[in-house]
Amino acid sequence: MDTIYSDGYHIYFNNVVDELIRFIKNGGYSRFFVLTDENTSEHCLPVIKEQLDELGNYDVIEINAGEESKNIDFCIGIWRMLVDFEADRKALMVNLGGGVVTDMGGFAASTYKRGIDFVQVPTTLLSQVDASVGGKTGIDVEGIKNIIGTFTQPKAVFIDVAFLQTLPERQILSGLAEMLKHGLILDAEYWQKLKDSDLKQPSAELIHHSVVLKNKVVLEDPKEKNIRKSLNFGHTIGHAVETWSLTHDSNPLTHGEAIALGMICEGYLAHKKSGLKAEELEEIVSVIDSLYPRYSFKHSIYEELYSIMLKDKKNFDGKVNCTLLSVIGQFSIDNVCTKEELFEALDYYVNR
Amino acid sequence: MDTIYSDGYHIYFNNVVDELIRFIKNGGYSRFFVLTDENTSEHCLPVIKEQLDELGNYDVIEINAGEESKNIDFCIGIWRMLVDFEADRKALMVNLGGGVVTDMGGFAASTYKRGIDFVQVPTTLLSQVDASVGGKTGIDVEGIKNIIGTFTQPKAVFIDVAFLQTLPERQILSGLAEMLKHGLILDAEYWQKLKDSDLKQPSAELIHHSVVLKNKVVLEDPKEKNIRKSLNFGHTIGHAVETWSLTHDSNPLTHGEAIALGMICEGYLAHKKSGLKAEELEEIVSVIDSLYPRYSFKHSIYEELYSIMLKDKKNFDGKVNCTLLSVIGQFSIDNVCTKEELFEALDYYVNR
Ligand SMILES: NC(=O)c1ccc[n+]([C@@H]2O[C@H](COP(=O)([O-])OP(=O)(O)OC[C@H]3O[C@@H](n4cnc5c(N)ncnc54)[C@H](O)[C@@H]3O)[C@@H](O)[C@H]2O)c1
Ligand SMILES: NC(=O)c1ccc[n+]([C@@H]2O[C@H](COP(=O)([O-])OP(=O)(O)OC[C@H]3O[C@@H](n4cnc5c(N)ncnc54)[C@H](O)[C@@H]3O)[C@@H](O)[C@H]2O)c1
Ligand SMILES: [Zn+2]
Ligand SMILES: [Zn+2]
Repeated sequence: MDTIYSDGYHIYFNNVVDELIRFIKNGGYSRFFVLTDENTSEHCLPVIKEQLDELGNYDVIEINAGEESKNIDFCIGIWRMLVDFEADRKALMVNLGGGVVTDMGGFAASTYKRGIDFVQVPTTLLSQVDASVGGKTGIDVEGIKNIIGTFTQPKAVFIDVAFLQTLPERQILSGLAEMLKHGLILDAEYWQKLKDSDLKQPSAELIHHSVVLKNKVVLEDPKEKNIRKSLNFGHTIGHAVETWSLTHDSNPLTHGEAIALGMICEGYLAHKKSGLKAEELEEIVSVIDSLYPRYSFKHSIYEELYSIMLKDKKNFDGKVNCTLLSVIGQFSIDNVCTKEELFEALDYYVNR
Repeated sequence: MDTIYSDGYHIYFNNVVDELIRFIKNGGYSRFFVLTDENTSEHCLPVIKEQLDELGNYDVIEINAGEESKNIDFCIGIWRMLVDFEADRKALMVNLGGGVVTDMGGFAASTYKRGIDFVQVPTTLLSQVDASVGGKTGIDVEGIKNIIGTFTQPKAVFIDVAFLQTLPERQILSGLAEMLKHGLILDAEYWQKLKDSDLKQPSAELIHHSVVLKNKVVLEDPKEKNIRKSLNFGHTIGHAVETWSLTHDSNPLTHGEAIALGMICEGYLAHKKSGLKAEELEEIVSVIDSLYPRYSFKHSIYEELYSIMLKDKKNFDGKVNCTLLSVIGQFSIDNVCTKEELFEALDYYVNR
């Protein structure tokens, strides 16, 4: 698989650990820090520890696992550790973990001493195919996801499918939703290939292709002025349901489960509004239904979901904007959807 | 006076309030926020309030005055207010105040929703000639100054000498130290002009020229790789004494008072190490002595000052790096100074 070149940095897929070690060694860094969470400390750090130890002069900063840690208190904790370890401007941060670690580690690094270098070593499928590419860093404040952050590119990304061996299946499926999305919005052939694959163990090639697709989009539109919006397919409704679930369910939806649900609803809207054929909608629904559990929710929460959509940082002027499909493999941005249409789409999910 | 063009934005000096109003009006912003502190709410906001009110759709966020407010708690407070006021990505932040307001407001804006636009309306001499130009934003964490921040350019800067009418003289002198520095490192003619002026009421022309000088430096070297280091003249020792004073004195030194002291010490080092003539050193010392009170400190704190210098984010590998002068109007960067030399320079200040 080819190394991918993104906005000033490389994304490595082969001999990843060796490449990482070489990168650190040749980077001229004064020292480096590895950010992990409890799970990646246990499952991922051991994979590279021996080689890191040979480099010397590093420290591990560990945070608790889970989205709840992605907040300003943990971020301050990271800054403090950097101060205590006397990290200077030539220090490097190595973020070893899922999207929580790569997003928060990226934010902490991009603001410490007005920015030190960082690299991403994503260890979940979601962070490999999505979070580690595109330069978005962030933390949640007041329970609002990613409300604080920067656009800062890492110095390199190291993607090793081997890390996924210890990842629970539910987390694999979470990342898979973004891969399905990449096919649906950008590449019909890839969508077909995904359909024919064992999706509970996506191959390195499939992961690589998802990163190629996402990278193309963010390179063309780094600040989300136009085509980057394509990546929001499934996310308008999906994100609202995810937020609702996070505050109401004891075992909330993963991001990917919510996006899968959102793609069914927005697929329906695409059929209604932007030309997606009925057979294509059915195809999408059947693939998603074969992979993800059905989520049940009542009509009584629709109003609340709608008000979450209105607050989404992508929406202005009280209008809800959706990215839809025209056919499988082609997106259509800036479709204003009325409250009635959105409710109809939710009904479609619930009643099908 | 000419409008100055910096890294993608203008710095206005004429009809400043009108320009500000025009900027906001034509910017296509969804709404705007004015960040003030107690003093600028009282003295500066009234100057522009009537015209702001005509624009409508804005809110004022006020923080406490003083460096103690430049911390993460106040920053979170600003983020929260933005959330509560439902600021979207098209909101604008207008920072009306001294360096505390412009630095922290710039940081809050540069990270809210991964960056909203902000403009600087500096109301202290220090922030006019220094903080508002160059794209450094920041807050203090764990008592360490500017340890967290970003490099983000404002969309415009509006410098109005009229704001300085209510500024206490001690604050004028604080900003003046940076103006003297600009002359000493970059422009001997300007230094002469300053010497011949009423420095307790610097004219708009002098302020303008300082901004021209600083702007030239930061444009050439935005990330402080080489010539931007020239701006550190007086700051290695000055900053250490400032930090010490902040934690030990009930009425601590202002930044400028500390830098003035630092320029005497580093002027001495320049005489010792980089060719500054004895007469030039005497000239510098006599100008500074005529303006700034003498600060008294004992030999017993030298070690502590030295360890603060070592922690400075500009120093690496346990070496203290100073920017010195070769003649008045010309700087010389990366002069490694030994502990003995630094102590000698402190002695020179104390014993002269
Ligand atoms: N920056 C972006 O562009 C972007 C894009 C998508 C998502 N995100 C962010 O990513 C986050 C979600 O990412 P995520 O799903 O990776 O979350 P996560 O980091 O919480 O990881 C999910 C779980 O898997 C565990 N884990 C990680 N690697 C493992 C491994 N190899 N083996 C066993 N367990 C492992 C983690 O400890 C955690 O419990 C969200 O905060 C989201 O906002 C960011
Ligand atoms: N970003 C940069 O490049 C840069 C450069 C130099 C300094 N700084 C930062 O700037 C800060 C110091 O700036 P400062 O000296 O302006 O501090 P400041 O903002 O605290 O202002 C000093 C005092 O003057 C008051 N004040 C402000 N305007 C006034 C007015 N017009 N009339 C009456 N009172 C007024 C303030 O309320 C405060 O009490 C420090 O935090 C420093 O780190 C940043
Ligand atoms: Zn997503
Ligand atoms: Zn200064």
